[in-house]
Amino acid sequence: MTVSVADYTAAYLHALGVHTCYSLSGTGSIHLDQAFSQQPGLVTICARHETAAALMATGAAKLTGELGVALVTSGPGAVNALAGLVDAYADGVPVLVVSGQVETRHMEEGVRSFGVQGFGVVHSARSMTKYSAVVERPGDIRRHLDEAVRHALEGRPGPVWLDIPLDVQAARVDPDTLEGAEQSTAEPRGAGARQTARQLMTMLRSAERPLIVAGQGVRQADAVQAFQAMVAKLRIPVVTSRLGTDLLPYDSEFCFGQGGIRGRLYPGLIMGRSDLVISLGSSLSTAFVGEDADAFDPDATVVAVDIDPSQLTKKGVRVDFPVCMDVGRLVEALQEEAAEPAAPAHEAWLAECAALKAAHPTVGEQRPDGPINSYRFVDRLEAQTGPGHVFVVDTGSAYYVTGQTLEFTASQREITSAAFLNMGAAVPMAVGAAFARPDAQVLVIVGDGAIELNIQELATISQYGLGIKVFVLNNGGYASIRESQAALVGGPELEEPETLDFSAVATAFRLPYRTLRHTGSLDADIATVLAEAGPALVEVVCDPAQQLLRPLRADGGRRAHDGASMVRADGPDDLPALTDLVRERELNHA
Amino acid sequence: MTVSVADYTAAYLHALGVHTCYSLSGTGSIHLDQAFSQQPGLVTICARHETAAALMATGAAKLTGELGVALVTSGPGAVNALAGLVDAYADGVPVLVVSGQVETRHMEEGVRSFGVQGFGVVHSARSMTKYSAVVERPGDIRRHLDEAVRHALEGRPGPVWLDIPLDVQAARVDPDTLEGAEQSTAEPRGAGARQTARQLMTMLRSAERPLIVAGQGVRQADAVQAFQAMVAKLRIPVVTSRLGTDLLPYDSEFCFGQGGIRGRLYPGLIMGRSDLVISLGSSLSTAFVGEDADAFDPDATVVAVDIDPSQLTKKGVRVDFPVCMDVGRLVEALQEEAAEPAAPAHEAWLAECAALKAAHPTVGEQRPDGPINSYRFVDRLEAQTGPGHVFVVDTGSAYYVTGQTLEFTASQREITSAAFLNMGAAVPMAVGAAFARPDAQVLVIVGDGAIELNIQELATISQYGLGIKVFVLNNGGYASIRESQAALVGGPELEEPETLDFSAVATAFRLPYRTLRHTGSLDADIATVLAEAGPALVEVVCDPAQQLLRPLRADGGRRAHDGASMVRADGPDDLPALTDLVRERELNHA
Repeated sequence: MTVSVADYTAAYLHALGVHTCYSLSGTGSIHLDQAFSQQPGLVTICARHETAAALMATGAAKLTGELGVALVTSGPGAVNALAGLVDAYADGVPVLVVSGQVETRHMEEGVRSFGVQGFGVVHSARSMTKYSAVVERPGDIRRHLDEAVRHALEGRPGPVWLDIPLDVQAARVDPDTLEGAEQSTAEPRGAGARQTARQLMTMLRSAERPLIVAGQGVRQADAVQAFQAMVAKLRIPVVTSRLGTDLLPYDSEFCFGQGGIRGRLYPGLIMGRSDLVISLGSSLSTAFVGEDADAFDPDATVVAVDIDPSQLTKKGVRVDFPVCMDVGRLVEALQEEAAEPAAPAHEAWLAECAALKAAHPTVGEQRPDGPINSYRFVDRLEAQTGPGHVFVVDTGSAYYVTGQTLEFTASQREITSAAFLNMGAAVPMAVGAAFARPDAQVLVIVGDGAIELNIQELATISQYGLGIKVFVLNNGGYASIRESQAALVGGPELEEPETLDFSAVATAFRLPYRTLRHTGSLDADIATVLAEAGPALVEVVCDPAQQLLRPLRADGGRRAHDGASMVRADGPDDLPALTDLVRERELNHA
Repeated sequence: MTVSVADYTAAYLHALGVHTCYSLSGTGSIHLDQAFSQQPGLVTICARHETAAALMATGAAKLTGELGVALVTSGPGAVNALAGLVDAYADGVPVLVVSGQVETRHMEEGVRSFGVQGFGVVHSARSMTKYSAVVERPGDIRRHLDEAVRHALEGRPGPVWLDIPLDVQAARVDPDTLEGAEQSTAEPRGAGARQTARQLMTMLRSAERPLIVAGQGVRQADAVQAFQAMVAKLRIPVVTSRLGTDLLPYDSEFCFGQGGIRGRLYPGLIMGRSDLVISLGSSLSTAFVGEDADAFDPDATVVAVDIDPSQLTKKGVRVDFPVCMDVGRLVEALQEEAAEPAAPAHEAWLAECAALKAAHPTVGEQRPDGPINSYRFVDRLEAQTGPGHVFVVDTGSAYYVTGQTLEFTASQREITSAAFLNMGAAVPMAVGAAFARPDAQVLVIVGDGAIELNIQELATISQYGLGIKVFVLNNGGYASIRESQAALVGGPELEEPETLDFSAVATAFRLPYRTLRHTGSLDADIATVLAEAGPALVEVVCDPAQQLLRPLRADGGRRAHDGASMVRADGPDDLPALTDLVRERELNHA
């Protein structure tokens, strides 16, 4: 009994648990398109741009930790998908792109294009995937799928790519005789976890102000519950990277929010005072540790645990004790090694951190008649969210404001492009999230500039009737950016785009349009929007003069430890200049 | 006297004649952004997506043959530009992408991301550029610019990439002491042109049915006028590739339109009957010569002249006499060698071709009260265009219908994505065309699906007040595609997107909206649209049941040489099935 390679691929992925594929069909992938659409239990979602298809698969995979799959055609379709894949590479997300290709007899190295719309995309994909290959022989399909899936999920996850020529797609294979890949011989990186945990416990006991920095490696190791239990036993403060913000409820006595230049006001004060930093599955990016890795006290000891050895030795990171290990194994071992009941050794330090947290709320009072402050909006939106809600956040001021304001409860999640702040990724990622968790309320928060980059996918939300609420923060242009650009480089202002007519955008893409304009009725207006079934495009008309909060610096923090450094989002008079915040592209489209 | 590398780069490009740069600014390129905006005589156009910025530069370069320049930021911005660059690679267009990058001290091989939004984009760019480099040392800037520009323009043109880290952007250099690249030692590929021309003249004299296949190599060699003079002397028929369609006015007695599976009805009949084919600067793509290079008579002699040796030996091309040479030199030599006045040796053959041309018009009569046929629309639109008009054509049915219908006059041009049919490229390419030729009327023809992929750039047209008319062929969905997909692979129909509300699209992106609905008033309605100043989004409500024309096949052509194979666009009863036409992705978004 033989089946086509296309059918085999669809069945293989379905057997793996893949139930949704994001695609823009085309003739180069026509057998795959057909096979995927005919595979029972596998739904193919029609995106309107291949970049968006890759981002939808990424959004689903970010939410579930399971393999996301995108299917695209040859040539420009495949290259478009590349642009959507680099975020999965940087953020460590398991995504498989399957691309169609011209027939093998037309494929050739060293020519710019071949056949009808043929391009050697795997060469470009290689530098942003963990595995990429052309399936040149039908009999190799199982081996390539095995390898691709293993690389996508194993160790630090990431994207992979299979390019399947038309003749191979259509070729018949006997599933029973297909050879698979050899089993991975890589040693599971859990060996030595207990010994390492004991060493860490020794270090913790002698530290005065220990700090855990938690990143998404904890979630990727499927160790969220173990992590929470470990923290409760150790009773030491936790600061998170952006992808770790939903590891602990914000109201946990151990949670001290997101650090780094895009983080909350006060975690930098804690980071700068700690004498022992244990990073668990955080990439310790430049945005987190500072341009010169100076967010931590120079005398502090920094331990970093990561499954990816390159993360431990990369430039710009100062790690005294690199531990290349599965974070989950170490967290479990630490949990077991921690004293029970917890040692109260660091209660004073914990109280000190709690005082900083209490002294630096993001959102203060606001006059009910003023224009809407975006911090206030996010605060009031979150107040009406419940368990299981998924926030999907874009770049620019949306990214800053949510990261500084959202206070997750236990089952809430955030999806965002953390390493790259990939402008415009939120709408397609939200589509993926909505298909991955059909029962969850998905809330997009995106700026009026960033939404343009994948605006066509609003029609996908509409077409599939996804109950996504897309909140567009419209600050009436780019007031804050003008100011920051002038401050950074001086001279004349750069050319700036104008904003869209969002009421017409909603009509164009067939979504209901709602608007939030008044601070006084914000709670009631949000309630109305959330009470309506189905999707909506919600324009939030924000104060164009509002500034963003600047996280306090570590060295400044040490000096300002008297608590006088409180800054409120609603008190523009107290706000420092934006200079430190604008070192990113997306702010140009805030 | 020193200047920053960023300022030097801007001044270098301006001195080269670059007057427009397409950009989406960002912090990774902030010094470059500033330098470009301050360079007198250099205007930076603000795109709304980096993919579109690259396509704008491509559109300008396609129109002028001069270097197009895009400026983007690091990380996702740079990767987005990649997706817009592959078209320039396949179509041989000189485009320079300058990308910002994080500081050199943060750059590192083998890590997925570095610094703030840093990614090693040149690795991915390498396989779709002729030259790509990181400018690691300020003192190397002139050398890299020299090399990049030379590669972009020399031989077969193509895209190039320079990635400039922030610290290098800001570094000071003394322009007087910068070293440039060594002069190219490549021999100009004109040697032997006269001898080759004499050989070709000998072959021509003994051939009964010689044919010239002309591609954009003629234009790239700046040899359009020499080519026209040569053809007038040789008096033999010319069939063109898509990028050669505007080399000759269609009413020339030697012009027999675009060949290939996306071409006119009858050129395949001529191609299949010729006994000597001389290809001048055409890539002889699979879509042109057929899947098995069977568009030409198996006994015919095929001579191909191309500056790029890989084009002469690539798979799927049957070339008996490959000539790697500058097409312009050869055309000039041929013109000089051709007898004057022209030998009438092939007048019978020319008359035979003329009879085929006359017997196969694309557009026939149409009832004035029926729905608009898209062939009819293009025919009537063209009837009202004048000298210097620039058509910018997208993919899908827009591509087929225009290629089969447009009859260029002498100074008209077409811009399109020929090798890759890059869906959605027309709107941004039109922006580039409009800036490159401010006095020209730019007319976009795009399908209702394809326009979505860069729909955000409608706002760029609006913002800059570009007088571009964007005609959207709306066939009420994808009726013809459903049919063709079912015919090709059988089984259930694939999921399809719904169309947008184009009136609201126009409002959203702040463009005037016009609509063409009635065949009877088509001429008057088009006249009204063209008479209005400024941009417009013009929805052309087309007959959803209309089919596309299938070019006649070479072998069928030889059999059907009695002229009975005439097919008219308005006679649906005579139309064959779509099967041969749908082997491309873009038809899914026709």
